[in-house]
Amino acid sequence: MSGLFITFEGGDGSGKSTQAALLTTWLEGQGRSVVRTREPGGTDVGTRIREIVLHHRGEVSPRAEALLYAADRAQHIATKVRPALDRGAVVIQDRYLDSSVAYQGAGRVLGATEVRDLSLWAVEGLLPDLTILLDLDESVARTRLDAADKVFDRLEAEKQEFHGRVRAAFLDLAAAEPDRFLVLDAAASVESLADSIRSRVAALL
Amino acid sequence: MSGLFITFEGGDGSGKSTQAALLTTWLEGQGRSVVRTREPGGTDVGTRIREIVLHHRGEVSPRAEALLYAADRAQHIATKVRPALDRGAVVIQDRYLDSSVAYQGAGRVLGATEVRDLSLWAVEGLLPDLTILLDLDESVARTRLDAADKVFDRLEAEKQEFHGRVRAAFLDLAAAEPDRFLVLDAAASVESLADSIRSRVAALL
Repeated sequence: MSGLFITFEGGDGSGKSTQAALLTTWLEGQGRSVVRTREPGGTDVGTRIREIVLHHRGEVSPRAEALLYAADRAQHIATKVRPALDRGAVVIQDRYLDSSVAYQGAGRVLGATEVRDLSLWAVEGLLPDLTILLDLDESVARTRLDAADKVFDRLEAEKQEFHGRVRAAFLDLAAAEPDRFLVLDAAASVESLADSIRSRVAALL
Repeated sequence: MSGLFITFEGGDGSGKSTQAALLTTWLEGQGRSVVRTREPGGTDVGTRIREIVLHHRGEVSPRAEALLYAADRAQHIATKVRPALDRGAVVIQDRYLDSSVAYQGAGRVLGATEVRDLSLWAVEGLLPDLTILLDLDESVARTRLDAADKVFDRLEAEKQEFHGRVRAAFLDLAAAEPDRFLVLDAAASVESLADSIRSRVAALL
């Protein structure tokens, strides 16, 4: 059995964690070894990087921020994801390079292409076998987050308009690589989404 | 008065700090505003990055390490060096992108060109007006460091053979950009070196 690299993308509140958990349970029921991970923060080094990016009190320059995310990614892929894929596991990851491109490239001052190039350099070109985009209208996403009464971090606190641009960027990325992406309407029921995801993953196994 | 960006390069023990201090004193005596800084660690964010790179107990992948240094550099240049140059100060910096290329590119597994490209992206192309390379035979450097009875960090503890490759890489960089570099034999006396440096800087002012 060869490894399979699956990523979940989409805004906060789109249900990535819920679907990743359901997919994990299903795959383990099929006898597959599953590694669940996320970015940023998937490694010890990455956790420390994440603290810098999200909780630094002063200004973090846009390029410094992009490079820190790329460093987390390089470490994470080299020490955790590639070894898991090499031993035949399914890696299910919350956020990957599409998040960087959508948040940093489209949402901020850097170009999408240079952010993508930076990420690809960091990971020596590793792309997912499947990327599941849970697409959600940003006002629905906001309502979900408000209801959860979460404390917002720096990124989450950015304006709703920003989230609208991020959403559009994700949809553009999916349109550019239709074979890699499965785009789902995250407003659908949890079970309906899980069914769609299982069908696509089953076809890949 | 326009700003001036001067960097010191060379292995540990080559006298960069001593010469940077003497040059600072001299420039201040000429009525110039001087900002002394260093990489890594020139900013609050950079200090935290440096802790990760130098003191992490496990493996830091080569690309993650290069990206962390680049992130420190991006933050440092954007928030400290460019503002100082914009107000007409002389910035004297201990280590810059040539160190990254020499240590990371030539000394480790990454190519010199990709490390340089990464650094230049981080700083939006900012090159020094003058780079002073204090070139020192690596066995002399080792003797100096041993005499200082310093506790070696991870990089310093690498083999002497590694330092020989770094030295050769610095000399190659200087040969490729003779206008930007002033190469001095760091075995010369402190006063003789300071004289040579002052002459070159005076010509730039």
